Order: sequence, then structure tokens, then C-alpha cells
Amino acid sequence: MGQKISVLIVMGSDSDWGIMERATQVLKEFKVPYEATLASAHRSPDRTRKLIHSAEERGVQVIIAGAGGAAHLAGVIAAETILPVIGVPIESSPLHGLDSLLSTVQMPGGVPVASMAIGKAGAQNAALFALQILGRSNPEIANRLRSYKEDLAAQVEAKGKQFHGQSQSD
Amino acid sequence: MGQKISVLIVMGSDSDWGIMERATQVLKEFKVPYEATLASAHRSPDRTRKLIHSAEERGVQVIIAGAGGAAHLAGVIAAETILPVIGVPIESSPLHGLDSLLSTVQMPGGVPVASMAIGKAGAQNAALFALQILGRSNPEIANRLRSYKEDLAAQVEAKGKQFHGQSQSD
Amino acid sequence: MGQKISVLIVMGSDSDWGIMERATQVLKEFKVPYEATLASAHRSPDRTRKLIHSAEERGVQVIIAGAGGAAHLAGVIAAETILPVIGVPIESSPLHGLDSLLSTVQMPGGVPVASMAIGKAGAQNAALFALQILGRSNPEIANRLRSYKEDLAAQVEAKGKQFHGQSQSD
Amino acid sequence: MGQKISVLIVMGSDSDWGIMERATQVLKEFKVPYEATLASAHRSPDRTRKLIHSAEERGVQVIIAGAGGAAHLAGVIAAETILPVIGVPIESSPLHGLDSLLSTVQMPGGVPVASMAIGKAGAQNAALFALQILGRSNPEIANRLRSYKEDLAAQVEAKGKQFHGQSQSD
Amino acid sequence: MGQKISVLIVMGSDSDWGIMERATQVLKEFKVPYEATLASAHRSPDRTRKLIHSAEERGVQVIIAGAGGAAHLAGVIAAETILPVIGVPIESSPLHGLDSLLSTVQMPGGVPVASMAIGKAGAQNAALFALQILGRSNPEIANRLRSYKEDLAAQVEAKGKQFHGQSQSD
Amino acid sequence: MGQKISVLIVMGSDSDWGIMERATQVLKEFKVPYEATLASAHRSPDRTRKLIHSAEERGVQVIIAGAGGAAHLAGVIAAETILPVIGVPIESSPLHGLDSLLSTVQMPGGVPVASMAIGKAGAQNAALFALQILGRSNPEIANRLRSYKEDLAAQVEAKGKQFHGQSQSD
Amino acid sequence: MGQKISVLIVMGSDSDWGIMERATQVLKEFKVPYEATLASAHRSPDRTRKLIHSAEERGVQVIIAGAGGAAHLAGVIAAETILPVIGVPIESSPLHGLDSLLSTVQMPGGVPVASMAIGKAGAQNAALFALQILGRSNPEIANRLRSYKEDLAAQVEAKGKQFHGQSQSD
Amino acid sequence: MGQKISVLIVMGSDSDWGIMERATQVLKEFKVPYEATLASAHRSPDRTRKLIHSAEERGVQVIIAGAGGAAHLAGVIAAETILPVIGVPIESSPLHGLDSLLSTVQMPGGVPVASMAIGKAGAQNAALFALQILGRSNPEIANRLRSYKEDLAAQVEAKGKQFHGQSQSD
Repeated sequence: MGQKISVLIVMGSDSDWGIMERATQVLKEFKVPYEATLASAHRSPDRTRKLIHSAEERGVQVIIAGAGGAAHLAGVIAAETILPVIGVPIESSPLHGLDSLLSTVQMPGGVPVASMAIGKAGAQNAALFALQILGRSNPEIANRLRSYKEDLAAQVEAKGKQFHGQSQSD
Repeated sequence: MGQKISVLIVMGSDSDWGIMERATQVLKEFKVPYEATLASAHRSPDRTRKLIHSAEERGVQVIIAGAGGAAHLAGVIAAETILPVIGVPIESSPLHGLDSLLSTVQMPGGVPVASMAIGKAGAQNAALFALQILGRSNPEIANRLRSYKEDLAAQVEAKGKQFHGQSQSD
Repeated sequence: MGQKISVLIVMGSDSDWGIMERATQVLKEFKVPYEATLASAHRSPDRTRKLIHSAEERGVQVIIAGAGGAAHLAGVIAAETILPVIGVPIESSPLHGLDSLLSTVQMPGGVPVASMAIGKAGAQNAALFALQILGRSNPEIANRLRSYKEDLAAQVEAKGKQFHGQSQSD
Repeated sequence: MGQKISVLIVMGSDSDWGIMERATQVLKEFKVPYEATLASAHRSPDRTRKLIHSAEERGVQVIIAGAGGAAHLAGVIAAETILPVIGVPIESSPLHGLDSLLSTVQMPGGVPVASMAIGKAGAQNAALFALQILGRSNPEIANRLRSYKEDLAAQVEAKGKQFHGQSQSD
Repeated sequence: MGQKISVLIVMGSDSDWGIMERATQVLKEFKVPYEATLASAHRSPDRTRKLIHSAEERGVQVIIAGAGGAAHLAGVIAAETILPVIGVPIESSPLHGLDSLLSTVQMPGGVPVASMAIGKAGAQNAALFALQILGRSNPEIANRLRSYKEDLAAQVEAKGKQFHGQSQSD
Repeated sequence: MGQKISVLIVMGSDSDWGIMERATQVLKEFKVPYEATLASAHRSPDRTRKLIHSAEERGVQVIIAGAGGAAHLAGVIAAETILPVIGVPIESSPLHGLDSLLSTVQMPGGVPVASMAIGKAGAQNAALFALQILGRSNPEIANRLRSYKEDLAAQVEAKGKQFHGQSQSD
Repeated sequence: MGQKISVLIVMGSDSDWGIMERATQVLKEFKVPYEATLASAHRSPDRTRKLIHSAEERGVQVIIAGAGGAAHLAGVIAAETILPVIGVPIESSPLHGLDSLLSTVQMPGGVPVASMAIGKAGAQNAALFALQILGRSNPEIANRLRSYKEDLAAQVEAKGKQFHGQSQSD
Repeated sequence: MGQKISVLIVMGSDSDWGIMERATQVLKEFKVPYEATLASAHRSPDRTRKLIHSAEERGVQVIIAGAGGAAHLAGVIAAETILPVIGVPIESSPLHGLDSLLSTVQMPGGVPVASMAIGKAGAQNAALFALQILGRSNPEIANRLRSYKEDLAAQVEAKGKQFHGQSQSD
């Protein structure tokens, strides 16, 4: 775990990879160095702490934490660092992620976690939000985010035009 | 924090005392030595760990943790000990304790937390459940629990008889 | 039902076996004598009572009750004994176990039930929590729980290292 | 508890009286002999069973059970009798009666409980539903229910006419 | 629709038959004459009213209404009759029947609907509850209900014994 | 009930007036003739039907229905007319209007109800939506709606400027 | 986007088409000119605004907006127009459309959105409600809606009769 | 709106000030220039857009948006900027902020909003999270955040010691 990285992605379980992989795809697209690894708030608390305590010196600017059920991971990480922590609630219990969402977002005053949506959209947005943070001091990333935003709009525009054929005027 | 205690009660905030005091009343009634103190999973993670790591040598047999909102306290404690951890969800956010309940009870496989009901009934029952655990190796406590149970029934019986006057047989 | 057992596992229906079997696997691993059987709070109340009333003399130290829907089983058992009762809410209705969870956990003051998570994680943790209780007077079980906890951490560590390959540093 | 009664009203706690009294008012109005008493599924299971087992010989035709939290009372009663059991969920926990409702209504196949609305409307309707059952073999009660229904409509009609003044036709 | 029937089963849609058929199986088993038909509170209000208004003269003693979504059917029927109306919430929308349950059970004071559980267990219990009502004036049905109840217990007993093999006592 | 009105407002109970009055204030402001009256889907079904059946010939263009609990009123009205029906869920039960909302909005395909927000905002918007419908064939109302919209923006602008003083730039 | 249309259907994503197509089927059946297109409140806000601002001059009388998750589309459109806006919540997240429903229906006072049910029933009803609005100034559409309503009832009647065979009168 | 500010706080309504003021207190404490103002996504969409479009040139690094009900404000702002947007759900409807939370957090992939907890804790944390972002390029702010974190722990420590007197060791 020696090289410099800007974003650290932590998952509570390897079964979360299917969701959290979406975050890494965005970071790859933006060519931002990241590391994705496992560390459980409940099963490996020491590993989690060590990972966080070494994060700042490794150059980490933002931490993304994805977890399901009683999703304590993001909160437990936020307790140990002043780096911005973004939480991704993962649907892994019969309650469809409502438990993960509330466990992630309802943090007490003093220790913020930035919660994203449940699941893949949340993982994608966690990466984009990390980039928005990096973009505050990195104009190149900011510019690429502007292009990304324009692309989103252009895609809707293009699909909307193709779609036009489905309209009808008697 | 030197004396021997059997039950350690931890609260995330002093505003939880109004609820958790109910647990101490039960333990006092049973003359079981306990300590009630504050330690936040998010605001004072080191203090929380130290408290738990010193618990076993202080003779603690059971830990009760009460917290509100994204109630990570019981889970974070359970991650650090093999002592039984009982969680009391506290209603402290606009969501009426649903967030605290799900954050407390929906623990992943491997790290159990025993969740009680939200609020005062939960605090009372956390103490009784701690006594039921102690009662497994302490016959006197077991006997007192039997009396307690009989008293509960007797109280309902007595109230039910007084209440009888409200019946009617036109 | 004559032999000595330490843990009694009761299910409301044989359809709950797929979930509750997870509890028995943990107890087998720890070589703790248990019995798993059926008894419904609603369909066979007499059987349930007899089972509970004979539990203490059979040496039972902890009772685990798994049920779905309006899951009254754990509460009904707790009404009849001073043994610690652990409830496992099972997802068996369209409401995804929210009904089972609330029926299990929201017990009135005086009669505690220790609720675990909904489903398999809850069944696994019920067995572990039972072992944590037994471990209070059985140092061998306590030691094995310490190893179990270390194994959990080691597994995350190992998986985390393998996983490392997925990281990227452009 | 010797006299003949048609409807037995059972409450889990005397704090439920404020709600369940509404049921007794309706029964008084219809001059149907009833008894209202306390019996807790959890704190006094024996009393509850005795009450139910003596109900048939006392002439009871319908049982109404009101309870809050993990409201097991109606289900536990239904397990012991073939008399129709009507459940009234009572709002007594931070969850606003959602727990009581789900614990009352989500009964497994084989043991029905007829759930009414949460709170006072539920208590009133429990009594009316009991009367509808009695009305199946008692034409006088059936006739009085017809009048009651007409009165409800007439009251709305009357209030609606008075209210008419608030309309406007500029 | 001429012959005498004791129980009228009404469904809001033919897609509800998969659930409501369960009610007819119970009634067939008890050899109680019934009719199951369609009538929607929203799509065929006139048909619904005619069906209800002719019910009493056809000998109907109890009405069972099954519906999904904004399940108004049971309430709309209860508005038109003093016969006992039993509602079965059906899971037919993305909300898993929570909408049907609340629409069925939360009736205003004055017009009771007896709500059963969501889905098949509810349909089965609706029929059993109808039989419990009929049993109040029909001792044969009452006796058969007693046997049914004993059978339920015997089935659990038998399954529990077979199941016994899964227990273990190291 | 003879004069011509454009909007008919129906409430299930006079206790709903505190909420529904908000709708009449908007209509008064726009000088649109309306009538507000009581009619319960459950307690006065005949009155409700008569009211709706006479609505078209009285010139009614839109119907607004406000109700709480199992709020069937809007749906029952929509079953009887092809006029647009707007539903206002009212918070009148312990469930805070979630029951009213789901009972109002989850209508089956074929019989639409347009649901507004729970409570006063919903009542205000029901009137505005009725005006938007009337505005389709009444240019004066359309113009007044444009002014209303501009006023809303101007009010936020004005309040925002006053508020400006609270900003700070150290 | 030049021709005259009466109803504009906007979707937040092309994945919503499977649901929203149901609305277009109804409009086709009624031979009402419409256009269905894509425009996202979040990914293409400019396109959305242009679409709405040009709607009135294109003759649009009603706008239907379908979206999932944090479904802002209908509200964002309603902010820009005095045309009636109908919202269709779409189930596209793990929360089964509860998020879409609340995001669509809980609009603040001043800016109404008419919410339909979640999913296909909602899409069908959005089109029917649009027709009910058009029917206020177009007697032909009103007449066709009357026939549609009669057809709905006739279909239930017909299915109910076929279904009759399933009844039984022992 | 001319001076340089680092954080822009936008509220949907002046009634949100009671909650959002908490954010400004934190920013004042850290001496970070901010502006707090009103702009509604629904009632003043133009003002909202202008505010956002001028934000970057005014030096704004982070935007905080607080809103209740169908809380679209944060999402609508995020649609118009690549600055990080933090959402604070505000409890302003009968649903206790569940609607605001889901409307804020469940954003679609591509347009992130960082959601905080409902209410005051969320407002406080929004400011702290904004500071954590600013701290990435401002070491002084980072240092002050470290002190703030130590102060939080010290406060719990101090309160915990005072509290110690409540412990008991019979």
C-alpha cells in the first residue's frame, strides 16, 4: 500500500464489489489514482483504522466507503479523519438498503458523512463527488467535469431526438 | 475507573441519560455493580476503545450501549470484544428511532449485537437481559429474576381486579 | 427430548429451517450441544410452553427463537422463562421482514427479547451471541470466540490483500 | 368473573384504557354485557390463558384485545380459542403504532386475528364489529346496527347542510 | 346469483384470484356454501353495490373482500351493509402490499373492516375468521374449528418430532 | 345546492376543515365559485353519490376531495364521474398521513385520482391545480395564474434580499 | 418539434419508456396528438426548460412527467409553467418507488404536481387524467371517457360472470 | 451579492432558517466567508439558477442547500454546477423529513448531491463537510478541523468523567 493515491475506496465486504466497481470505473475514466480495498468496521476494526491513519500521508484527499445492513463503515472512518468521507449505502439485506441508508446518513452533529444514493447510482456519484472535491484545487479535473456534464446533457438530447419517432400527432 | 463492575453502560451522548437511567434503576434494584458513562463511537473513538479494552479485566460481564440517530455505538463496541453487547436504540432524530433501531439491529454475520426496543422499555429490558446473562452463573440473581417475573404477573393480576369495576353486565 | 443441551433453537415453521440452519452450523463448529425443533406460538401454544418449561431442567442456558410475519414466538417464550431469549426475525411475508423485526424487538418493559438482524446474518449471530453468554462461565468457549474474532479479521485482511490488484495508480 | 358476558375486552396494560374505553362506550350504548380487564401476553401469560379458557363457558361470543408495541396479545389469545378475536393496535411506542399494527395483523395462516385501525377509531370499530358478529344471531342487535348506520349518514347530512354556509358562489 | 350462500367473496380484479382462491379452499373443506366473484370499487361501483344489497336476502352472513393498491373495496362494501366485512390486502403494487394494508385497515370510526394479513395467509385466515363467525350460531362449524385447531397443533408436533433428527448433542 | 359552481370541495369529516379551508382561500382569491361540503365515503355513501351525480349539471368542472386515514373519498368519487378528481391526503391518524397518501394515490389503472401533498400545502395546491385546469379554457384565470407565479418568485426574491443581512464575509 | 400537440410526455430516462409507453397507448386510443420525449431534470436542465417554454405555443394543454429515484422532473417542470403537470413515480431504485412517490407528490404550497400511482397503473391514469382535463372543453373526449368508464364496468361484469363457475353452493 | 465568499448556503424557504442557521454558526466559528440566502427550486427557479451561475466567479467553492418536503433544491442546483453540492433534508411535512431525505439523497447517476442527516445535525455537518473540502487546499482550515475533532473528543471525555458519579458499585 505504498504508492500515492488521491481517492481511497473501502468496502465492508467483497460482495460489495459489484456495486463499488462502478466508482472505480469513473475514477479510471478521469485517470485519478485510487485504491479499492476491503476493511470491515465490525470484522476488522484495526485494519480499518490503520488504513485511515495512513491515508493522509499517502496523499489521499477523499475517502469513499461502501457498506450494507447496519452500514457503520463510513461513520467509523469519519470518526478517525478530517478527510471528506463519502458513504455509499449498499442494498444487502431484506430491507432493500433502507437500513444502510439510515445508518450512513443519520450521523450526529460533529462528524459528517456525505451520503450518496443506495446502490450503483450512489457508487458512480461517490466517484464524481470525489472528483468535484479534487476539482476545487485541480483545474484540469474541473474542466473534465464540465465536459462530463455537457456529455450527459448531449446524451439525453441525442436519445431524446431518436426517441422523437415515438411521438404521434394523429 | 478502577473498581470491579459487572455491567458497563455506555451512552453516545449525555442527552441519552434520560432513557438509559432506566437501565441503572433496574441494576440498582438487583444490587449489581455497574458503571454508566459516556463514549461516542464518532466523537471519541479512542475513549470508546479504551473503555472496552479495559472492561474484561475490570470484571465486566455484559456491556449495554445506548445511542440515537445512526446508532453505531453498540456495533463499534461489539467489534472490539467477545463480551455480550446489548444495544438500546434511542429516539433522538425526526425519524422516531427507526434509524437507531436499524443501525443497531442489522449487524452483519460474525459480530452480534442484541437489540432491545426503542427507548425506555428497551433500556429497562437491556438491564433485565444483562441480569438474565449474569443469572446463568449466579443462582441468586436467577432467583431474584424469578421473583421479578412473578411480581410482574401479580401486578397485572392486582390491577386487573381493581379494574374489574369497569366491567358491565347490563 | 431427554439429553442435556445448552442451546434450544425453536422455529415457528419448518419453512424457517433454511434460515435457522445457519445458527446450528455455528453451534456445531463450537461443539456446543443444542436441539433445533419446531413450535409455533400460534398453532401449537401448548407444545411451545412444554418445551420451555422443560428447558431449564434439561440444562438449557439460552433459547433462540426464529419466526416470520407477526413473529410472536420469541416474546411468547420470554414470557415463560428467565433464560435469555434471542429472537431471529425471518423474512416470510411481502413486507420483507419489517413486520418480523418489529414484532420481535419492540417488547414491553419487563420481558426482554434480544433481537438479531433479519435473516441468515441474524441466525448466525444468534448462535454467536448464545456462545458469548455461555462464554461468561466457560473459558474454553470464550477462548474459541477470541479465535473466531481473530479469524474474521484475518479473512478480511487476506481478501483485502488479494483484492489489492484491483487498485490502480495510473 | 362469574356473570354472563357476550364480549370480553382484554388490554395489555392499564395505560391502554384511554383508547379501549371507546369500545366499552359503544357496547354500553347497545346494552350488550361485556367485561373489560387487564391481561398481558408477556407479563401475565397464565392469567391470559385462564381468562380465555373460561371465556366460552361464561358465554363470551367475541374477544377484543388491545395492545401496543410488539402487540402479541390478540395473537396469543387467538392461539387458545376458536372464538373470533378482534385486535386493536395501540400507539404506545415511538413508532406511532406501526409496530402494533404489524404485530397484530400479520398473523400466520391458520390462526386469524381481525385487525382494526390503530387507536380510538380502532377501539370503536372493534366494538361495532363485535356487534355485527352478535347481530348474525340476534336480530335486535342487527336492527340497532341498521339504525346506527342511518344515524351516521344523517349526522354527516346534517353537518354538511350547516356547513353549506361556507360555500361561495361569488 | 340466485342460490343461498353463507359467505360472499369479492375480488377487485381477476388477478387477485391466485390469492383469494386460498379462502375458497378453506370454505370448501368446511362444506360452507360460498360465492366468489369480481366487483371493483372503482371500475364497477354499481355492480359492487348491487352485489352487497342483494347479499342479505341471499343468506350471506359474512363478506370477504380482497384488493390491492389503494384497496378501497372492503371499506366501500362496509359502507353499504351491517354484515361483517373481512378485508384481505393483496400485494399488487411495487409497495409490497403496504398500501393495500393501510387502505384496508385504517377505517374511520363507525364503519369497521376486519383486516387480515397481506396475501395468502390473509386469504386463508379470512375464511377461517368467517367460519368462526358462523360458528357462533352453528355448533357443527364450531366443532370442526376445534378439530382444525387440534390438527394444526398435531401437525407442528409431528413435524417437530421428525425434525428432531437435526438436533445434536455432541 | 342549486347555484352554479366550478369547483366542488368534499371533505370526509368536519375535522378536515382546518386543512381544506386553505383550498377555499385560494379559490376565493381567484373569485371562482365553489362549494365546500361534507360527504363521507364510508358513513354517507348515498349522499356522496348524489353530490357527484348532480355535480356535472351544476357546472362543476373539477372536484377536490380531502380525507384522512384509509382515505377512500377521492377514489370513490372518481369511480362515479369523468370530472377530474383531485385528492388531498389529510394527517388524521397516528401514521402521519402515510395511510391517507397511499390510499389516495395508489389508484388502479382506469380510474385516476390526482394526489396532492399531505396537509395544508396539498389543500392549497389542489385549488391551484383546479385553477390550472379551469385556465385551459378560461384565459383570464390563466393570466391570473401567471401573475400568481410571478408573485411567488417576487416574494422569494424580496425575502431573499432582506435575508441578505444574515450573510457574512468575515 | 414543430407540430401541434395536446399532451407532452417527458421522461427522465429512456429506461422509463417501458412504463410511460402505457400512457401513450391510452392517448393513441383516444386519437389525441401527443409527443413523448426525454428530458432530465438533472442531466439536461436546459433541454427540459426549452421543452416546457415552447410547450404552450405548440398547443400543449397538459404535461405528463415520469421519473424514478429522487424524481424531481415533474416538480421542476411545474416550476416553469402554469399548464397542469401530472407526475408518474417510477420504480427504479431499491426503495421500490417510495422515493419517487414522495419526491413527486410532496410539493410545497404554490406549485402543484398531480401525482398518480407508482408504475404502469400511474402511467395509464396520467393519460386518462390528461383526457379528463381536455374533456372539460372538448365534449367529444368527454363522451369517449364516458364510454371508457362504461367499458371498464362492463369488463368487470363480464369477467365476474365467467368467474361465477368458481362459486360453490355445496 | 458582490463580495467574495467560499460557501453559499441556499434555503428553499425562510422557515428553514431555524435549521440552517446552525450551518452558519460553524462557518462563523471557522471565519470562513459565506452567504446565506433564499431561493426556491419551485417558486423562484430563475433566481436559483442565477445564484448558481454567478457562484463560481464569486469564488464559491461549496454550495449547501437546505429544503423540506419534496426537497428538489440540492438536486436542481447540482444540475447547474460542477461545484460540490451538500444537501440538508429539513423536517417540514407530516412525514418527519423522510420525504426530504429521499428527495435529496436518491439522485440519479451523473449528478451527485452529498446528503447530510435530517435537521440541525445535518446543517452543522454540512458546514463541517464544506470545511473538510476547503481544508484540502487550505492547511489552516485543515488544522482547525483537527483541533475541532480533538475538542469533540475532549468534551465527551470531560462529560464522561463528571458523569462518573452516576456509576455505582454497591
